[in-house]
Amino acid sequence: DYDSLDKVIIGVVGGDGIGPYITSQAQRVLEFLLDDEAKAGKVEFRTIDGLTIENRAQHNKAIPDDVLAEIKKCHIILKGPTTTPRAGDPWPNIESANVAMRKELDLFANVRPVKVPEEGIDWMFYRENTEGAYALGSKGVHVNDDLAIDFTVTTQEGSHRIIKSAFEYAKKSGKNKVTVVTKANVVKATDGKFLDVAKEIAKDYPGVEWDDWYIDIMTAKLIDPKRRTNFKVMVLPNLYGDILTDEAAEFQGGVGTAGSANIGKRYAMFEAIHGSAPRMVEEGRGKYADPSSIMRAAVMLLEHMGKIDKAEALSSALDKCGVYEKKYVITGREDGATGAEYAEYVMETLEKL
Amino acid sequence: DYDSLDKVIIGVVGGDGIGPYITSQAQRVLEFLLDDEAKAGKVEFRTIDGLTIENRAQHNKAIPDDVLAEIKKCHIILKGPTTTPRAGDPWPNIESANVAMRKELDLFANVRPVKVPEEGIDWMFYRENTEGAYALGSKGVHVNDDLAIDFTVTTQEGSHRIIKSAFEYAKKSGKNKVTVVTKANVVKATDGKFLDVAKEIAKDYPGVEWDDWYIDIMTAKLIDPKRRTNFKVMVLPNLYGDILTDEAAEFQGGVGTAGSANIGKRYAMFEAIHGSAPRMVEEGRGKYADPSSIMRAAVMLLEHMGKIDKAEALSSALDKCGVYEKKYVITGREDGATGAEYAEYVMETLEKL
Ligand SMILES: CC(C)[C@H](C(=O)O)[C@@H](O)C(=O)O
Ligand SMILES: CC(C)[C@H](C(=O)O)[C@@H](O)C(=O)O
Repeated sequence: DYDSLDKVIIGVVGGDGIGPYITSQAQRVLEFLLDDEAKAGKVEFRTIDGLTIENRAQHNKAIPDDVLAEIKKCHIILKGPTTTPRAGDPWPNIESANVAMRKELDLFANVRPVKVPEEGIDWMFYRENTEGAYALGSKGVHVNDDLAIDFTVTTQEGSHRIIKSAFEYAKKSGKNKVTVVTKANVVKATDGKFLDVAKEIAKDYPGVEWDDWYIDIMTAKLIDPKRRTNFKVMVLPNLYGDILTDEAAEFQGGVGTAGSANIGKRYAMFEAIHGSAPRMVEEGRGKYADPSSIMRAAVMLLEHMGKIDKAEALSSALDKCGVYEKKYVITGREDGATGAEYAEYVMETLEKL
Repeated sequence: DYDSLDKVIIGVVGGDGIGPYITSQAQRVLEFLLDDEAKAGKVEFRTIDGLTIENRAQHNKAIPDDVLAEIKKCHIILKGPTTTPRAGDPWPNIESANVAMRKELDLFANVRPVKVPEEGIDWMFYRENTEGAYALGSKGVHVNDDLAIDFTVTTQEGSHRIIKSAFEYAKKSGKNKVTVVTKANVVKATDGKFLDVAKEIAKDYPGVEWDDWYIDIMTAKLIDPKRRTNFKVMVLPNLYGDILTDEAAEFQGGVGTAGSANIGKRYAMFEAIHGSAPRMVEEGRGKYADPSSIMRAAVMLLEHMGKIDKAEALSSALDKCGVYEKKYVITGREDGATGAEYAEYVMETLEKL
């Protein structure tokens, strides 16, 4: 509960590529909306440098220790995209900074809304965010040149807290329907565990309807206009959540339009779900990067702080300024608006609301 | 090479629920098309019973030994859907019969075409079919009540043979483009291995363009009409292949319209990719079950036997009889056609071609 704190510290982590461009625009809008709180000393924005691929590579660590220490002094993090090293890159094969952050800060719930009002789509995804295929993601083994093994880890407690959150949300929001997505017919131990925990929790929510589907057929169901509106709240192990939320975001205009909240007991992190697009920056087009996704993350940040009116104001300003209605087009090129112009347009719109 | 055999034995495994209804219709059509070969003693159809959930449950085995022995006497299997036990079912939690069959017969390539000509979609999926998350799928461990672990296993040889098949097909078909789909940014050991092997194999195919994407964003790309036509041949580890082919089939009319070939060195198995729909049978609607998917599998069976003309004839007869063009509607209810009527209509159409 943030009201009980003397001051809420919001750390702004730019990340790589277009990250600093878009996070700074989201920060401007947040500062605009939280101006009173900041003046009263109740909110502080803090820029946190060093979560860049160069610095991470130099320390050979997903999050260098001093950066993590700074981050842990904050309550809330607004995070730009970070480059994930991959084979063939000039960087060491360190773990994704996103994934490391989720684990280090124990941000167990990755909450992703997708809305397409004109098509009746109003989905909320609760993705388990610390275990599953990600638990030991970088610690798989090359037994020898011929054989590699990775591990999927699911705990009772890890499943319980995310599924419980999903049911709680379904109840409170009045959506009253939860869909559990696994591949328990094949991945029997871990997904079976997840499904078993769901069955137990469902008993405590007699008013919430629930069903369960396998991830393969779920990707098909989301496409079918007749069936997809049956889904309200979905709860999934980490990897399936990763997959299904990217697909779902496409109906709304792509991953570039979707924000993401990573919620834990102590910390919360809000991020864009697209990549760091380093080429845009190399080609001098960083300032044309579209901040829509991180702005959507800012809406979730405000909601999470309990600033519901401000969250709603920002959300409807964003609706008006494009993304869903495409009135204001960010093209990523010089014939489009810059991120700064977009932020200004959003603030003007907020003033008129 | 089937020409060198005295006789090709085609085993027809009905499976569960609607399985026997639809496989028998596909068998009728195949017997019609292979009538000359059968009369000359070059082809024999053999009905194989016992791959039912009741029998599997009784033996507490995914494939009872005697059934497997019968199957192994055949060269080619036409298989109906089988019920996969799941927690809460009256059956023991045995492994999926599909999955067991793929492993027992070493059917390493799961080949699934998806075509929507009017939208420019012409995809061929090469799904690795024996390892990955499925390798030890039923052998994950419940370490204790709080902790479950599953394993993903990828071998050099297992990756090599499927990726090589995909590149060979891309070259021979003139599609000349392969997309490798992994989650190598997170599942680093096994998916990293798969991607590494792909990079090596690609070097042997200078005329075949290739790229690689992560499974999360691939599910979004397939939806985008502007980007999805860029994909031709996709090769994926088992679980991602499972997921992406269900999504892909939806564009063509759903999993009920897609056939699937499971190819190994010694055996090949052709199956419907939908479920066994036991409720249809319980409600007396088995004969109304749509055999489209297994008929598409029969097309692939003919192709695989080298009966290219017959495969093409059946394929265009199926096109004419609905599925894609929806002229002939199987509703699954009494107001629709029965599977037998559909098969007769297909045979009439074949006679007119
Ligand atoms: C970049 C990648 C490691 C990350 C993930 O797999 O979680 C991303 O896809 C996401 O969904 O936030
Ligand atoms: C039934 C199930 C075990 C199977 C799989 O996961 O492979 C099915 O989804 C398929 O794609 O053939």
